Amino acid sequence: MIFIDACFKKPTPTAPVWLMRQAGRYLSEYRATRAKANGFIDFCRRSDLAAEATLQPIEILGVDAAIIFSDILVVPLEMGMRVEFAEKVGPVLPDPIKTQDDIDRLANDCADRLEYVYDALKIVRGALAPDKALIGFAGSPWTLATYMIEGGGSKTYATAKKMAYSAPDLLHKLLRKLSDAIGDYLLRQIDAGANAVQIFDSWGGALEKSAFFEFSWHYMKRIAKRVKSERAHIPVILFSKGAGGYLEAIDGDFDVFGVDWNTPIERAKSVLFDRYALQGNMEPARLYSKAAIEAGACDIARVMGKENGYIFNLGHGMQPDFSSENAKFLVDFVHETFAR
Amino acid sequence: MIFIDACFKKPTPTAPVWLMRQAGRYLSEYRATRAKANGFIDFCRRSDLAAEATLQPIEILGVDAAIIFSDILVVPLEMGMRVEFAEKVGPVLPDPIKTQDDIDRLANDCADRLEYVYDALKIVRGALAPDKALIGFAGSPWTLATYMIEGGGSKTYATAKKMAYSAPDLLHKLLRKLSDAIGDYLLRQIDAGANAVQIFDSWGGALEKSAFFEFSWHYMKRIAKRVKSERAHIPVILFSKGAGGYLEAIDGDFDVFGVDWNTPIERAKSVLFDRYALQGNMEPARLYSKAAIEAGACDIARVMGKENGYIFNLGHGMQPDFSSENAKFLVDFVHETFAR
Repeated sequence: MIFIDACFKKPTPTAPVWLMRQAGRYLSEYRATRAKANGFIDFCRRSDLAAEATLQPIEILGVDAAIIFSDILVVPLEMGMRVEFAEKVGPVLPDPIKTQDDIDRLANDCADRLEYVYDALKIVRGALAPDKALIGFAGSPWTLATYMIEGGGSKTYATAKKMAYSAPDLLHKLLRKLSDAIGDYLLRQIDAGANAVQIFDSWGGALEKSAFFEFSWHYMKRIAKRVKSERAHIPVILFSKGAGGYLEAIDGDFDVFGVDWNTPIERAKSVLFDRYALQGNMEPARLYSKAAIEAGACDIARVMGKENGYIFNLGHGMQPDFSSENAKFLVDFVHETFAR
Repeated sequence: MIFIDACFKKPTPTAPVWLMRQAGRYLSEYRATRAKANGFIDFCRRSDLAAEATLQPIEILGVDAAIIFSDILVVPLEMGMRVEFAEKVGPVLPDPIKTQDDIDRLANDCADRLEYVYDALKIVRGALAPDKALIGFAGSPWTLATYMIEGGGSKTYATAKKMAYSAPDLLHKLLRKLSDAIGDYLLRQIDAGANAVQIFDSWGGALEKSAFFEFSWHYMKRIAKRVKSERAHIPVILFSKGAGGYLEAIDGDFDVFGVDWNTPIERAKSVLFDRYALQGNMEPARLYSKAAIEAGACDIARVMGKENGYIFNLGHGMQPDFSSENAKFLVDFVHETFAR
């Protein structure tokens, strides 16, 4: 698997490529699969449909890794929180976490309740070609905590930050509980067939440097360390959107640092590449134009084109209004451009 | 005025302090003033009320500079676009810019139509103590363009970015027209009594590095150069939220670089302080707790405490749910802590 080789900085014939949120609404095939489910949560819980969505980008785009189709919010869902996905509104958690009691009430056995994800992983791993990797994933403790405290998405993260600055001990209790659950969950995903795991810290950049390391990176490292100590052969990828200003202080026991599109790739290379493989970081909006795709991929190739230990990806996720034709164009262009 | 002295890196007895969005809903006095107007646009157009709101933070908090109360969207408004401010929804521009014709239709004489802002500046400058500075401001061309293209605020800036990557010439035409208007507007604000001007690039960080310099910073520099060449004695402050990863490439003819809270202040100091004064950058959410205010201000004092050419501010704006008591506590604490 060239994806796994790149994670471990072994030589590969070209840069492996996959796209964050590659199983998504921009694919008509995905929309057809989703239409078979009774709402988004049912979609996540139907292992057959989740497996179908997971495999589509492999077939349609020719990417080198599949990432299991799911949502980061299945963790709070299976910890017992109400999670609602209304069309075009984003997720809503109507009973947000406010107190110690709310935290105590969260189930400890969430990883046991996520069998449907493990079943989907088994189906996908059975169907995938042997040279294609399968990636498991989870949201970071901080990112999940923002949804659980805010009661959904947020522009300012005011409620979660208020807790960080006014009741840090309470927030730490929640983050510890989430870290344990996420660690269990990732280990179970590996045992079900995941060849690598990624932790998505979508809202790490909502925190200033000191708070980022205290409330987000600390827990990501803790989970990564546990996974690496128990499954050393599995690459661990950490992705924190918005951590570009904090690179000098990044540390921990993991394999691949996911670079977001705000972080110049040459800066990530100079600060982190001696210690970690790098994944990223084309600006997703370049998908709107083939000329912009070519220019963006060539810019990255000038920095990372000859390096082992580099995985091409976007610097954030695919958007619903992107075209699958341009996504396919990107994957082919990268395979050609980065060929050794 | 210690604020102006700090902009020019002259010695001051302590660090001057003001707070972005210091005239705002967190002040009951502001809410009372706003209630006298017939909606938000009327509030901006009523010079007497705008002056009242501008002066409140000077009286209540004891900050060293007043910033004229207005909104960045008065520029598209007076270029002839429909701009609506509905409560709790954010601004809506129902007829967004899509074509060359839409751009051609924008009025060239917008600066002439903003007399109400100049009138407010005159009232404020007449009422302000001589040691307090008055700041004029405008949104950056890119930031205004995002509202004008998206038809309001946005989470992804997908439409504006689509134009950037698919029709860059069209976007550049809009940005040039906005730059001319904003330059006129800032010069007129100076002539009406502003002692300094700041350009707010709230959404600069929505652009990857190459696009940031092409579509945002280039135009901010162009406006700054014009203002400095015509009014050399007036400090120009540039603030781009999200530019922390791009500091090494920052250049141009201006006086003060506004540091956002995502950018570690020690990094801004090492990269930019030999060329520019610095303003910023406490995480606004620290306002929720006096202990967090003290810790945050002390962290900054360890880096900038003894430096001339430093202005204390937040790294982004005040929020409606902040307490004026904590804001006052912050201003006093900074004046004490940074005293030489």
